[in-house]
Amino acid sequence: MKKLLNRVDDVVVESLAGLAAAHPCLVKLHPSVKAVLRADAPGDKVAVVSGGGSGHEPLHGGYVGYGMLDAACPGEVFTSPTPDQMYEAAKAVDGGKGVLFIVKNYTGDVMNFQMAADMLAGEGIAVEQVVVDDDVAVQDSLYTAGRRGVGGTVLIEKIVGAKAQAGGSLAEVKSLCERVNSQVRSMGMALTSCAVPAAGKPTFELGEDEMEIGIGIHGEPGRKRMKLKPAKEIVEMMAEAIVADLPFKAGDEVLAFLNGMGGTPQMELYLAYNDLANFLAGKGLKIARSLVGNYITSLEMQGFSITLLKLDEEMKALWDAPVETAGLRWGR
Amino acid sequence: MKKLLNRVDDVVVESLAGLAAAHPCLVKLHPSVKAVLRADAPGDKVAVVSGGGSGHEPLHGGYVGYGMLDAACPGEVFTSPTPDQMYEAAKAVDGGKGVLFIVKNYTGDVMNFQMAADMLAGEGIAVEQVVVDDDVAVQDSLYTAGRRGVGGTVLIEKIVGAKAQAGGSLAEVKSLCERVNSQVRSMGMALTSCAVPAAGKPTFELGEDEMEIGIGIHGEPGRKRMKLKPAKEIVEMMAEAIVADLPFKAGDEVLAFLNGMGGTPQMELYLAYNDLANFLAGKGLKIARSLVGNYITSLEMQGFSITLLKLDEEMKALWDAPVETAGLRWGR
Repeated sequence: MKKLLNRVDDVVVESLAGLAAAHPCLVKLHPSVKAVLRADAPGDKVAVVSGGGSGHEPLHGGYVGYGMLDAACPGEVFTSPTPDQMYEAAKAVDGGKGVLFIVKNYTGDVMNFQMAADMLAGEGIAVEQVVVDDDVAVQDSLYTAGRRGVGGTVLIEKIVGAKAQAGGSLAEVKSLCERVNSQVRSMGMALTSCAVPAAGKPTFELGEDEMEIGIGIHGEPGRKRMKLKPAKEIVEMMAEAIVADLPFKAGDEVLAFLNGMGGTPQMELYLAYNDLANFLAGKGLKIARSLVGNYITSLEMQGFSITLLKLDEEMKALWDAPVETAGLRWGR
Repeated sequence: MKKLLNRVDDVVVESLAGLAAAHPCLVKLHPSVKAVLRADAPGDKVAVVSGGGSGHEPLHGGYVGYGMLDAACPGEVFTSPTPDQMYEAAKAVDGGKGVLFIVKNYTGDVMNFQMAADMLAGEGIAVEQVVVDDDVAVQDSLYTAGRRGVGGTVLIEKIVGAKAQAGGSLAEVKSLCERVNSQVRSMGMALTSCAVPAAGKPTFELGEDEMEIGIGIHGEPGRKRMKLKPAKEIVEMMAEAIVADLPFKAGDEVLAFLNGMGGTPQMELYLAYNDLANFLAGKGLKIARSLVGNYITSLEMQGFSITLLKLDEEMKALWDAPVETAGLRWGR
């Protein structure tokens, strides 16, 4: 698998340098640890911080900015960042109202964010954490006890970031974060593998007529490998599992998020979204908001994930609130 | 090559249906021909219309909306739309101030837009056309007499769309379009081929250690095939050719656009942007604006293109003007 890079060891730092160079009005890099910080002073508000392994861009660094994250801590590719990154990033953006850590449910991330939280608490900084676990595909996985955190993370970071931007207290922001996490469900699939730069070869092999349903965002195994089917059947198989899980009920208003895994043509994402919209209409679910594109990726993997969030009025208003980040942006 | 689709013949219409379903506030489909129209009434302004083969999404349908295009005509994958699509789309969005066609320089597109312009002129509708030809890689190509229209098209549609939105006359909008085209230069490269759905196999073959420099957005041959090099060397080779062509001079303010071909991880795009920013700084060029991401693609092709636009004050203000489209969006 070919990669655009200079030295394998430098891919993350050089990519972060490019992010900062491209968006100087939105983000800056922490002077001493690998962390992306808001370029402006977030001011007198709860600081919202996330992070995790690199390779899922724009998550999380691309979501730092007005109305979303105050800081993001990128680890090496598919590897948890370290507690000192999280600690320093939180210190840099804490405005005295406390810090919320949004943590995807992977063992390393959970452990390291916990250590960082302990370090901050030891200094009297108020810290809360919410672990995101929206993937209905598998109960446990290669890297997780319990469900994995996947596409729902994007929606959570947007909605919770807007709440913090609007002046919500740490308790309110945490409570909203837990509520959104409790109402969001996801599942992914892959047509092809990704390849970690340091490995230089595909993480797994799929036959020319095969796909993997329920795959994780690191290429870890899903529910089953099967023959490739028409898009409509794939979408329905995934959406059925998601709808049944919450369960979503006729009349519910949802945010429908069709996410590309990184290497899927946009034409195919919209085609699959069309199948999803038809399926949801058939179930009596109302798509009140939608998002289609590459928002949480697995390097160059071809495939997509579906995320459904059951909306309420507060979530809708917070979704619509202005956001200015490299990865998600609409006006104030 | 695996694809997310139902019937090969339906990929474009189903993808367009998904685009319209996902963005009902921004776009609607023409009732009788394949065309994407602004959902709102564009009102009393020059109508800006573009189009071309599908497979380059978000170009062009993703750029329909406030402050950019009023209509886009998608052909089949990598195939020109027909004159009747262009004619009907222009009629649907003409507000009496005339229509500007933005045409990428491919033989079929140029011929068909000319026929549509003749049909409209025959009905007394004022129509002007500008042919975009910003690719410095080759003089003529498989599908082109003269240079190909590539990445510059995105910048032109944004800037010219803003001018029309601001009330510019047809003559002013056309003149600006020609000026931007005269000051923009691009070049692309590929690590992998794309595959047209109807063909079902890669358009070309590249060895596991090879890349193609100067490739077109349909996978048509470029300047040369060579061994894969470090990102920095690739970026410099392409940027040198672009800078020399205009030529861009020390002190010039530029918009630096690093575009993904569709299948490239965002991490690699920002890494390459970092190399580009360093190169331009070394040349004394000032990056006043930038854009990084998948904006004009070749289905799932891995690779990227560089576009540089020499900015003036009017172009900067129009670039910053509000835009609300599926593919490019910032606030009013």
